[in-house]
Amino acid sequence: MAKEKLLVIPLGGLGEIGKNMTVFQYGEDIIVLDAGLSFPDDDMFGIDLVIPDMSYLIENKDKVKAVVITHGHEDHIGSLAYLLNEVNVPVYATKLVCGLIEGKLKENHITHYELNEVHHGDEFQIGAFKVGFIHTNHSIPDASAIFFKTPVGTVVHTGDFKIDQTPVDGLVMDIHKFAELGHRGVLLLMSDSTNAERPGYTESETIVGGAFRKAFTEAKGRIILATFASNISRIQQAINTAVQFKRKVAVFGRSMVNNVQIAIELGYLDVPQGVMIEPDEMNRYPADQILILTTGSQGEPMAGLSRMAANNHRSVSIILGDTVIISASPIPGNETSVGRTIDNLMKLGANVVAGKEKKIHVSGHASQEELKIMLNLVRPKFFIPVHGEYRMLKKHGEIAEMMGVKKDHILIGDNGQVFEFTNRSGKKAGHVNAGRVFVDGLGVGDVGNIVIRDRQQLAMEGMVIVVMTLAKGTCHPLAGPDIVSRGFVYVRDSEALMNEAHDKVAAVLERCEAGNIREWAVIKSQVRDTLSRYLFEKTRRRPMILPIIMEV
Amino acid sequence: MAKEKLLVIPLGGLGEIGKNMTVFQYGEDIIVLDAGLSFPDDDMFGIDLVIPDMSYLIENKDKVKAVVITHGHEDHIGSLAYLLNEVNVPVYATKLVCGLIEGKLKENHITHYELNEVHHGDEFQIGAFKVGFIHTNHSIPDASAIFFKTPVGTVVHTGDFKIDQTPVDGLVMDIHKFAELGHRGVLLLMSDSTNAERPGYTESETIVGGAFRKAFTEAKGRIILATFASNISRIQQAINTAVQFKRKVAVFGRSMVNNVQIAIELGYLDVPQGVMIEPDEMNRYPADQILILTTGSQGEPMAGLSRMAANNHRSVSIILGDTVIISASPIPGNETSVGRTIDNLMKLGANVVAGKEKKIHVSGHASQEELKIMLNLVRPKFFIPVHGEYRMLKKHGEIAEMMGVKKDHILIGDNGQVFEFTNRSGKKAGHVNAGRVFVDGLGVGDVGNIVIRDRQQLAMEGMVIVVMTLAKGTCHPLAGPDIVSRGFVYVRDSEALMNEAHDKVAAVLERCEAGNIREWAVIKSQVRDTLSRYLFEKTRRRPMILPIIMEV
Repeated sequence: MAKEKLLVIPLGGLGEIGKNMTVFQYGEDIIVLDAGLSFPDDDMFGIDLVIPDMSYLIENKDKVKAVVITHGHEDHIGSLAYLLNEVNVPVYATKLVCGLIEGKLKENHITHYELNEVHHGDEFQIGAFKVGFIHTNHSIPDASAIFFKTPVGTVVHTGDFKIDQTPVDGLVMDIHKFAELGHRGVLLLMSDSTNAERPGYTESETIVGGAFRKAFTEAKGRIILATFASNISRIQQAINTAVQFKRKVAVFGRSMVNNVQIAIELGYLDVPQGVMIEPDEMNRYPADQILILTTGSQGEPMAGLSRMAANNHRSVSIILGDTVIISASPIPGNETSVGRTIDNLMKLGANVVAGKEKKIHVSGHASQEELKIMLNLVRPKFFIPVHGEYRMLKKHGEIAEMMGVKKDHILIGDNGQVFEFTNRSGKKAGHVNAGRVFVDGLGVGDVGNIVIRDRQQLAMEGMVIVVMTLAKGTCHPLAGPDIVSRGFVYVRDSEALMNEAHDKVAAVLERCEAGNIREWAVIKSQVRDTLSRYLFEKTRRRPMILPIIMEV
Repeated sequence: MAKEKLLVIPLGGLGEIGKNMTVFQYGEDIIVLDAGLSFPDDDMFGIDLVIPDMSYLIENKDKVKAVVITHGHEDHIGSLAYLLNEVNVPVYATKLVCGLIEGKLKENHITHYELNEVHHGDEFQIGAFKVGFIHTNHSIPDASAIFFKTPVGTVVHTGDFKIDQTPVDGLVMDIHKFAELGHRGVLLLMSDSTNAERPGYTESETIVGGAFRKAFTEAKGRIILATFASNISRIQQAINTAVQFKRKVAVFGRSMVNNVQIAIELGYLDVPQGVMIEPDEMNRYPADQILILTTGSQGEPMAGLSRMAANNHRSVSIILGDTVIISASPIPGNETSVGRTIDNLMKLGANVVAGKEKKIHVSGHASQEELKIMLNLVRPKFFIPVHGEYRMLKKHGEIAEMMGVKKDHILIGDNGQVFEFTNRSGKKAGHVNAGRVFVDGLGVGDVGNIVIRDRQQLAMEGMVIVVMTLAKGTCHPLAGPDIVSRGFVYVRDSEALMNEAHDKVAAVLERCEAGNIREWAVIKSQVRDTLSRYLFEKTRRRPMILPIIMEV
């Protein structure tokens, strides 16, 4: 009989798409599943990356025994370097994932780590947990679901998955293993909710191959194909089509170059001899014998293209007759900028192939009917929908209920939620710290909400700085007040406004002097109030006002 | 025989969605068609509205004889107040449009203007132009296409349109008039390209009524329905459904209240006695007898809802059992924030009805088959696709070619393009000034690209200000250098960084003093360079650095 309770604590990925990280804790043992990052929202000005708040793991450092990784996407491995910096424990992942992780850690100058390659079908003990990896399909090869056999029962976490009956590498999902686990009894299923709102089935990745062949048939000049650097199967299909149409392939974009190299080395990408060429060899071939594979430095497919569209790509200029294939769907929120990029490519003379109807991109996540199959295979006692915004989690919960999971066994939570399980019960039990940590340049966590709020105000309204040098112990200005603004108004056109603002501040100083006010805080706040009121009245804007006093 | 050429000059709406404005010029006569605005892109920080650059009209003030307006949407009437401020000429529009324009001009404190109500079917002379209005369908009633009979031939401008065979107000498009003009010969057609990429037909507005009835049938508590304030037909259907289901209707949001009032007064909205209630009367009725109509103050459907979702709406709090109907599609680029709003509404206990599959919203713009009908009716000699981003214009051009317009008679241009026509020729002939003028608070055009660029840098990297008071004619600091930052780093956590930055600046001043450098510009640039290099090395960020020197 188990003495302890199993705690399941998502630190990322609930109520959001991205920065996936889940803690599994039994007694003195913690295993972390995935260590992802997310990219900043529009209003997180200047932020490069967002990673989960890992303070719970740092506080419980001694208990953490391992990190297990489901697959090699940034939203599952992107914060691993930050985690290992704080809590350096062994990492377990499949072959391709290990290759991608090694690249990441090297980039982050992490040299001491223990990375263990696992195979689908392996089972091994880590503390109180028996851990196993199950092969699934996703938009990157070598993806896994992971299960834990614990003293209170078996937990299955799907990772990101779809059920592809005809995957490009021929390796279908190991449905049998899910069936076997389900047959023996599963306490808890945690399943990918990204496409929970989408009816039906997600199309097979191989459908894209057909769309590529159609586009290649119609193309008269060069073909430039943009996709996610991590989508090795997509890249394989592009290369296959290039071989079929006798085109040479040149690869652009740091992530794409790295991933292609890793995938070839590890045997996940099959490229016949003589197909790949170096970028500078392109001019040796006629336009209709060239395929350019491109992505951004972070693997974002539009980044390279948008530089080509703006005519400032280092080595590729769009020429009349180019065909551009965008094999990706815009990241939500980016639709406008993707549209602008397409417009600019077309203005430069390119023919652009993009859009859902053309089947030039398919999703890597299971739709409703596949989610039902997973629930039906695993038949869990408890269900936690993961990887999704709230409405997706909720929808996935409704699907689970339809599939026979008891309503009060469906647990929907947010990041930091502690889910507590015995072999017969499951419930929510409080919260631990969880949230967003901003990465900006070299800084991790040094930009917080106050700095972001300042950036938002600066962005919207600009800044007015008032400097004055006062005679020691008085409000008598020896120099200034000088008023300088940035992001507020054209100074040239606003001389009268600025002159009057100056007079207002001078008047405040006179009043302070007359009233014998000496505290800088009081003087500053009066300057700020007076100027703020005046500028709002004249312009209906509220710039950040920053009074600076010096004393001589 | 015509002596002059007809010039057609779009000042807005080409290569973009929004701020529609087109100039028609023959000899000494100019007519302006529409005067719209657009809303700012994400990267136009702090901007409230964008209007067309009207300098061509201001320079040719004496020639401008009239403004004709196709319909009452912001992107067609929103810059009229700014135009009339500069060029006060008579305005011609249909009844409802006149009502909406009056409201707009009042808001902008414009009291002297000549507004002429026209009827569909009217034809009248303005200078060299005989002008006529043709009834069309769109997502607002009383919409028009406008034609000009000129000495070189007839021009038809569709405005925004769709062909709705079963419009809510029963008034189908006047297809006969287009046929008649086509039969007599049309020199030039300018047609709406918004949906040129969309195959098939746009659904009739009445389809939404069915979706409303389904949602009302399923709703147990209050219904909160969000839509565009201008979509009077949509509002009519909401009210009809409320009457059918015996619900009282309360209206929220400045634009919605105004538009409903204008539409009722002018006879465009039919509301039975006793259906409308004041917001404060809601508590007299049970939840299942309430319909709340809501929109934002600028008519944007999500604005009111997002306040409710964030629990800070002035008078409506979401309660368990509310049904929220979002009868609108997200403005491109807003998908993420709409998703967040839906999540928050659901967390508060609301059932949310939204999305394309539910037919809860239909477009107001013609799809490809309707565009073909228009081309087939009008059979123009020349064709200019308007109202759309470049790829939409291009697609519309291809459709026109399919419909028999000669390839070199299809003219695709951008804002400011001058199109020149005789009775037998049409070509592009140079550009006039055209572009975006930013409205920020009370300022029109005082925020330009430099200010926006500053705001972008401030948003991304923040600002570091260095102030110092130097002894007259030296580089010897009497006070300072003081370093203040905003939007850069948490000052509390970065004391060491700031101290070292201070020492770097002090060292620069010493070097300047030693080198006898006295020019403030040189000192500032050395401070800026040194600090910029140091901070980038330490943080990989490039804040705006602003050195300020005072002298005593």
